[in-house]
Amino acid sequence: MSDISPARSNPEPGGTPPREVDWLLADADWVLTCDAAMSAIPSGAVAIEGDTLVGVGSSRDIRSRFRGRNEMCLKGCLVAPGLINTHGHAAMSCFRGLGSDLPLERWLTEVIFPAEASHVTPEFVHYGTLLSCIEMLKGGTTTFCDGYFFEEEAARAAQESGIRAVLGQGILDFPTPDQPDPSRFAERAEAFLRSFPPGESRLQPSLFCHSISACGPETLRRVKSICRESGILFQIHLSETASEVEQVIGRYGTRPVHHLDRLGILDDRTLCAHAVWLDREEIDILAARGAGLSHNEESNMKLASGIAPVPELIGAGVRIGLGTDGCASNNDLDLFSEMDMVAKSHKAFRKDPMACSAAAVLRMATRGGSAVLSHQGMTGGIEEGWKADLIVIDLDQPHLTPLYDPISHLVYAAGAGDVRHVWVDGRLVVSNGTILTLDESRIMKEVLRIAGKIAGAS
Amino acid sequence: MSDISPARSNPEPGGTPPREVDWLLADADWVLTCDAAMSAIPSGAVAIEGDTLVGVGSSRDIRSRFRGRNEMCLKGCLVAPGLINTHGHAAMSCFRGLGSDLPLERWLTEVIFPAEASHVTPEFVHYGTLLSCIEMLKGGTTTFCDGYFFEEEAARAAQESGIRAVLGQGILDFPTPDQPDPSRFAERAEAFLRSFPPGESRLQPSLFCHSISACGPETLRRVKSICRESGILFQIHLSETASEVEQVIGRYGTRPVHHLDRLGILDDRTLCAHAVWLDREEIDILAARGAGLSHNEESNMKLASGIAPVPELIGAGVRIGLGTDGCASNNDLDLFSEMDMVAKSHKAFRKDPMACSAAAVLRMATRGGSAVLSHQGMTGGIEEGWKADLIVIDLDQPHLTPLYDPISHLVYAAGAGDVRHVWVDGRLVVSNGTILTLDESRIMKEVLRIAGKIAGAS
Repeated sequence: MSDISPARSNPEPGGTPPREVDWLLADADWVLTCDAAMSAIPSGAVAIEGDTLVGVGSSRDIRSRFRGRNEMCLKGCLVAPGLINTHGHAAMSCFRGLGSDLPLERWLTEVIFPAEASHVTPEFVHYGTLLSCIEMLKGGTTTFCDGYFFEEEAARAAQESGIRAVLGQGILDFPTPDQPDPSRFAERAEAFLRSFPPGESRLQPSLFCHSISACGPETLRRVKSICRESGILFQIHLSETASEVEQVIGRYGTRPVHHLDRLGILDDRTLCAHAVWLDREEIDILAARGAGLSHNEESNMKLASGIAPVPELIGAGVRIGLGTDGCASNNDLDLFSEMDMVAKSHKAFRKDPMACSAAAVLRMATRGGSAVLSHQGMTGGIEEGWKADLIVIDLDQPHLTPLYDPISHLVYAAGAGDVRHVWVDGRLVVSNGTILTLDESRIMKEVLRIAGKIAGAS
Repeated sequence: MSDISPARSNPEPGGTPPREVDWLLADADWVLTCDAAMSAIPSGAVAIEGDTLVGVGSSRDIRSRFRGRNEMCLKGCLVAPGLINTHGHAAMSCFRGLGSDLPLERWLTEVIFPAEASHVTPEFVHYGTLLSCIEMLKGGTTTFCDGYFFEEEAARAAQESGIRAVLGQGILDFPTPDQPDPSRFAERAEAFLRSFPPGESRLQPSLFCHSISACGPETLRRVKSICRESGILFQIHLSETASEVEQVIGRYGTRPVHHLDRLGILDDRTLCAHAVWLDREEIDILAARGAGLSHNEESNMKLASGIAPVPELIGAGVRIGLGTDGCASNNDLDLFSEMDMVAKSHKAFRKDPMACSAAAVLRMATRGGSAVLSHQGMTGGIEEGWKADLIVIDLDQPHLTPLYDPISHLVYAAGAGDVRHVWVDGRLVVSNGTILTLDESRIMKEVLRIAGKIAGAS
């Protein structure tokens, strides 16, 4: 459009004409910036140019400064940063709900490990991750951090979907579906890093040592060293169950965080998933090293792994994001239900209704997640100069009416099904609840075909 | 339709011709009957005549026995009994999310009681309840049990919506919005019962004594006696917080369940909401008297009221259903998120992943709820001769793909937004996610008008 419609933009008389940008999203009932003060802008707008947020403010202000090649009126909607899922195994959506209501050890050894040994192939990882990307994008998650096998295929799926992702190749001291000879783990890691799609800034590689139990000291040190050389994130499952902690103490004579710290693993490019069983000293070490945690409350609750000391972790200044874990143990990838569960469960466990406020939880799901992935200053907030990763929530629905507090609403009342539009890196990837980047029905068919084999074998 | 299409019904050669019924719903991937064995029928169907389920079984069997004046193919769908919400204050949707993240006592005394004193009118109750009925029906709840003021208006709203309901007029020893002179509580109760819409079997009146703290022994005895005379349900909030229990002990020298028992209040027509703080002896008394409980986990967690001993209650044979409580303290009326929360939280609290299985939770949300409302043998299951209160879940979605266990799926992965069609009493009230009985947009506008006054005053 070459003319400036006065109905859409109101330059001050004699002032600078509005700058033309790719997207002008205006008249939103609320823009939740998730900035440091968790500010909410009533009647807000954002301007997007390329992959970047170039304007954030009141609709009046943003309309006076920008006009959009594409404009959208968001009356009756709320704009929020895309949510950030800091821990999961996307391909495992092929195992959704397999073996519910079993303890972690039995669930792993009797259900999941045998299923993985028989069924995990590049095709499984590709289609499972594609399905998860659709679920996550439609549900308002714009970044996910992953760990699995054949992770090249997860990267390819993420690239096709348009989502932002950190893809972690899984490393164990045992034979795995993509590495029958565990002694060659470093070759596997390096092959993964070499194969990583170049020139795609939305995607970053990572290495994921499964756990202290599954990776000896030499493996941990060597993998962390490869991560340091490549400047990438090191991931590990940490202290998910009490019995895992006992095992580590039995084998190494020290608790898990001390063990990792002695090996020089903990720094601000290390992300520890679950981190349920931590003592005071371990919390202080994690804070001092700047290590990041992924809190996976729904998975921890479903598997009865324990309750992570989240209020203490936040109090100690430990960096912390939220994660769904694989949807075999959750059984979905919904960060809205995760936020609701986190806010309510810590209040209940502490007998303190002020523990984990809605704002604290939303911060973990946005800025907090961004920080543990080393994406701070880029994602997790609606701020000028940051990446345009945005979600639009449709407020005009009975279960979201009326609205007194937009942050409380987002955490306690909104759900994944209320997400209407999603932008990642400035690109509209979900519009009116429909994924634009992938063929949803074809991918569901492929996953059903794979699941048919799994169900037939179990 | 006068001809029998062979594609739809297959009478045995020479057999009885199929019976014509109002609805034939066939080819569902799963019919979850929620019968005593929690049976799931693959490729299932149901037949409805009038308000009654006249056929339940495999599609093949049901098609051979019935043909429908209306037929629906439910391929890709799951059929379940409508969910039953056994405790709430529907009108409070006008206060949705007001004063989040405060302790119960402060939330009540500083936020809710003043708001109720200023804003609760017949109009507030009417529109608030209409909004809640829309949210509940669209979210798969076909019965709710309520307690509030001006409950005639709640009954009128429930009647208009087509939902099944038990409507409890609130009684306190303090002035209330609809009874400035508390000494005349019995007149208020009787006026409510007289005014109750006659001849409407979907709706039943009830009386709701707020709590032991708010109702002295004489009030409790007199109201229970009116309930007995009328054969209706007596409701009360019981032992929601530890401080409430201390107050009762301080005033009456005994714990709340003993107090109610001594007054002769506890029988199978008494429903106690919350029931968080119970000792072993109280659990045994509740079981012996056949009293019903409504477990309100999300509300209890959000207000940090405590964790109800649900596994012990089930073990002792206490009858128990689920409830959302008012959506000021939850902040929605979603029994799907409630089921997910109940299943996960008791596993976490008990450190036992076998505590509260998906099947146990679904049973509470269906048959259990029916039993505590004295609707057993009528609702809460898909059984021949029972009321046709049904919901249809759309399984053909990324977050519900693949499916290995339909009960686990319903509890852990499905959400209120996945409900496609709803029947109550044989009447289709939600079709393709749209409510057929009410003008949703007008009701939302009226609630927003009321909320504008509440926000302006607070």
